[in-house]
Amino acid sequence: MRTPPCLLSLTLDSAVLNLSNITDLSPLPDHILIELFLRTLRAGKLTERVLKLFIATGKDEVFSLIQALNIQVTVNPVLPTSKCLPIKDDEIDIVIGALNFDLTSFMNVWRPIFSRFHLTIVKDPDLKEELKIPEGFNLDVYKEPDIDRVVGTSTSIIFSGYACRYFGYLVSRKKYIISMDDDCLPAKDNKGFLVDAVAQHITNLTTPATPFFFNTLYDHFTEGADFVRGYPFSLRNGVTCALSCGLWHNLADFDAPTQALKPEERNSLYVDAVLTVPARTLMPISGINIAFNRDLVGPALLPCFRLATEGKFRWETMEDIWSGMCVKVICDHLGLGVKTGLPYVWRNDRGDAIASLRKEWEGVKMMEEAVPFFQSVRLPQEATTAEDCVIEVANAVKEKLGSKDPVFAHTAKAMLDWVKLWKSVGGSSSSPGA
Amino acid sequence: MRTPPCLLSLTLDSAVLNLSNITDLSPLPDHILIELFLRTLRAGKLTERVLKLFIATGKDEVFSLIQALNIQVTVNPVLPTSKCLPIKDDEIDIVIGALNFDLTSFMNVWRPIFSRFHLTIVKDPDLKEELKIPEGFNLDVYKEPDIDRVVGTSTSIIFSGYACRYFGYLVSRKKYIISMDDDCLPAKDNKGFLVDAVAQHITNLTTPATPFFFNTLYDHFTEGADFVRGYPFSLRNGVTCALSCGLWHNLADFDAPTQALKPEERNSLYVDAVLTVPARTLMPISGINIAFNRDLVGPALLPCFRLATEGKFRWETMEDIWSGMCVKVICDHLGLGVKTGLPYVWRNDRGDAIASLRKEWEGVKMMEEAVPFFQSVRLPQEATTAEDCVIEVANAVKEKLGSKDPVFAHTAKAMLDWVKLWKSVGGSSSSPGA
Repeated sequence: MRTPPCLLSLTLDSAVLNLSNITDLSPLPDHILIELFLRTLRAGKLTERVLKLFIATGKDEVFSLIQALNIQVTVNPVLPTSKCLPIKDDEIDIVIGALNFDLTSFMNVWRPIFSRFHLTIVKDPDLKEELKIPEGFNLDVYKEPDIDRVVGTSTSIIFSGYACRYFGYLVSRKKYIISMDDDCLPAKDNKGFLVDAVAQHITNLTTPATPFFFNTLYDHFTEGADFVRGYPFSLRNGVTCALSCGLWHNLADFDAPTQALKPEERNSLYVDAVLTVPARTLMPISGINIAFNRDLVGPALLPCFRLATEGKFRWETMEDIWSGMCVKVICDHLGLGVKTGLPYVWRNDRGDAIASLRKEWEGVKMMEEAVPFFQSVRLPQEATTAEDCVIEVANAVKEKLGSKDPVFAHTAKAMLDWVKLWKSVGGSSSSPGA
Repeated sequence: MRTPPCLLSLTLDSAVLNLSNITDLSPLPDHILIELFLRTLRAGKLTERVLKLFIATGKDEVFSLIQALNIQVTVNPVLPTSKCLPIKDDEIDIVIGALNFDLTSFMNVWRPIFSRFHLTIVKDPDLKEELKIPEGFNLDVYKEPDIDRVVGTSTSIIFSGYACRYFGYLVSRKKYIISMDDDCLPAKDNKGFLVDAVAQHITNLTTPATPFFFNTLYDHFTEGADFVRGYPFSLRNGVTCALSCGLWHNLADFDAPTQALKPEERNSLYVDAVLTVPARTLMPISGINIAFNRDLVGPALLPCFRLATEGKFRWETMEDIWSGMCVKVICDHLGLGVKTGLPYVWRNDRGDAIASLRKEWEGVKMMEEAVPFFQSVRLPQEATTAEDCVIEVANAVKEKLGSKDPVFAHTAKAMLDWVKLWKSVGGSSSSPGA
C-alpha cells in the first residue's frame, strides 16, 4: 500500500493547477517556492507568464535553478519604432556603482536583461567586504586600487559612496551608458509584465526629443500618439536626445523629510508616458535609473557636489541633483533633449529616513541657492562641447556662489578637475584590474 | 402546452447571466439592447458596473429608460485632496458650443455628470435647424439674436462655428468654466470606469500648479506621488492653476495632414497623469476639452484668430491654438499655472480629413510665424490683469506680425475689440432668450 500524500504535497499540486489565478509568489518560504517551481516544470505548466511570476519573487534559488536548467527568459520587448537609430549591443554599457557587497540577487534578477551587454561595476572604495557577483556576465570590475591608479591623488574628486559610478562613466568606452542603483529590481508595467528598462532607455535615447514646444499627447512615437493639431511642423523633427531619466515604483526617490513624514508612502502609479522636459525647464534628475549618450554629454554628469554629511542612502545625497541641473543646462545650451518617464524600476526599502533628517537639511538649504543660479546661468556661444560647458558653469559657480558656502567653492574646483580628468582619461582606453 | 422560448429569448437570458464577462454592448441593435436592459433589471443584475456598460453604448433609448425609471447613476469619483479649494456646484458653468442641432445623445450620455451644474449652450449662428435638447437640465441657451443683442454689429469678432463657445465664456457669470465640444463622450479610465471629467478639471483648477520646476513624478497631489528629492522646498507651495487642458481617446486632436496620413490612428493610451506645463513653454492648447478660472483668465480665451477657410471640423480651425498661446503667455506673465493631462474624453469620428487638407495648410503656415512670436513676446510689468495682457499682446501682434499677413492684422484688431466687449459685457449680468 502506498503512503498517502502529505497535505503540503496536495497543496502544491493544487497550486500548480491554479497558477493562473496567482499573482504573487513572494510570501512563500524558499523551499516551498523551489518545490512548486519544480512541480510546475514537471507538469509542463511553466509558461512565460508563470516563469515571470517566479522571477518576480527575486529569490536567488529561483535564479540558480533557471540558470542551471538553462531556461530562456524573455522580457516584454520595447518595440523600436522606425525612427529609432539602429544601434548594436556593444555600444551599450551598464554601469553599476556597488554600495552593497553582495550583488547576487541584483544581478540575477536583471540577468535576462543585462546578460546581452557589457557591464562596468565600480566598487565603493569605502566598502570593506569582497564583492559577490554571480557568474555568466561580460563585465569589468573596478576597485579602489584601479581608481587610485587611473585618477591619482592630486584631485578634489572623491569617488566614494554613490559617486563611485562616475568612475565607471569615466572609464567606459561605450556610446550609451545605462546607470542603475544596486537596490533596483525590474518593475512591472500596467499589464503585469516585467519591463525591459534597458530597451526603453535606448528607445528614449535613439528617438528625437522635442524640447522647444510641448506635445500634449507626450511622446509622439508612442503607438496611437502623434503631434497634435497646432504643433509647429518645423519643430517636429526634434533634436537628439542625450539623457533619459527613468522613474521608480515602490520606494520613490523622495527626500528624507518627505520619507520621514510619510513612511507608508509607496508609488504604484504606472504613468505610461515618456516626455521631453522642455528647454529652460529645470528638474531634479535622480541618478537611480538613468541613461545617457556618453559621447555627447558624458563629461556633464559629474561627481562634484558633495555634502559634508553625505551618507550611503540616496536621500542623503545631492550630487546627482547638482549634476542633473548641470547636464540639463548644458543640453539646453547645446540643443540636445532630455526625456523623463518610462522605464520604471522597483526600489526596495532600506534605511531610516528619520535618522537621515539631520543630515538632509544641509542639501535642502543649498538647493535654494543652486536652483536660481542654474535657472539664470547662460553659457557663451563659444562653448560647443560638454567639456567647454562644464568649465563655463564651474567658473560661474565660483563667481556667483563661491562666497555663499565653502561647498560651492569646492564644487567649482572639482568640476574643473573633472574636466581635466575626462580629457586625460575619458577619451583614452583603460582596462581594469591592474 | 407552453410555446417554447425562441432562440433570441434564450440568448438574452444567457447574456444576462454572463454580463460579467461582457465588456462592450455597443454592437447590439437598439431593440435587443433595450430588451437586454429590461431583463437585466428584472433579474436584479443591474449593478453599477453593468449600468455603466449600458451607458457606454451612448444609445438614446438607454438614457430614456434610465431617466424614465429614475435610475441613479454614479460616476467614479475623482477624490478631492485636502489641498483642493472648497468650491460649490454653483460656481461652475458647463459651456457648450452647439455645432450640431441634435444634442440629445450628447447631453444624455453626460447627464450623470452635467445635471448637477448650470449649462450655458451657445448655438452656432450658422446652424439653421432648431436645437434638440433633452429635458432635465438647468441651462441657458443663447442663439444668434442673443449674440446680436449683446455684442452688436460694430465689432470684428465673429461667433460662428467653434467660436460660438466664446460667447458663452463672455456671458457666463461663474468662476469656473468647463468647455467641451459637442462630439465628446465620457471616456473610461484604465480600469474601465467612466471618468467624471468635470470633477477632474475642478481638481486640477483648485490644486496648485508648479510651473517653475518640473516634478518627475508629475502631479504631486496624486496618491503615492509627491515632490521628489531635489525639488526646491521654496517652490513646493506652487501657484494658482488657471487653466486645465484635458485629452482625447479614440479620435485625438490631430491636424488634417496627420489625420489624412494615418486615417486608422486612434488613441487608446491612458496616461494616468496631470502635469503642470512649465513656465515659458508653449503648447498647442485644444479647445475640445478644457476648463479655466474665468475670474483670472477669462478675457485671455478669445475668438480672434480666424482662417479665411475655417470650417466646421476641429482640424480646420486654429482659433483655439492661437487663444491657447495667448493664455499661456499671459499665465506665465501673471504667475499662474496651466495643467495638462487628465481628464480624457472620448471623441467620435466624423469629417473627411483629406477634403480639409487644402484648407489646413493656411493655418499650418501661419503657426510657423506665430510660434516664434509667442516664444519671444514679453509683457510689461504694468500689465497686471488678463485684460491688460491681451491688449499688450494685441499691440505686439500688430507691430511684429501685422505686415506679414492680413490675418494677423485682423487678429490684433479683434483682440482689442474682445477686451472692449469683455469690459462692457463680461463683467455685467446678462440673460438669454430676449
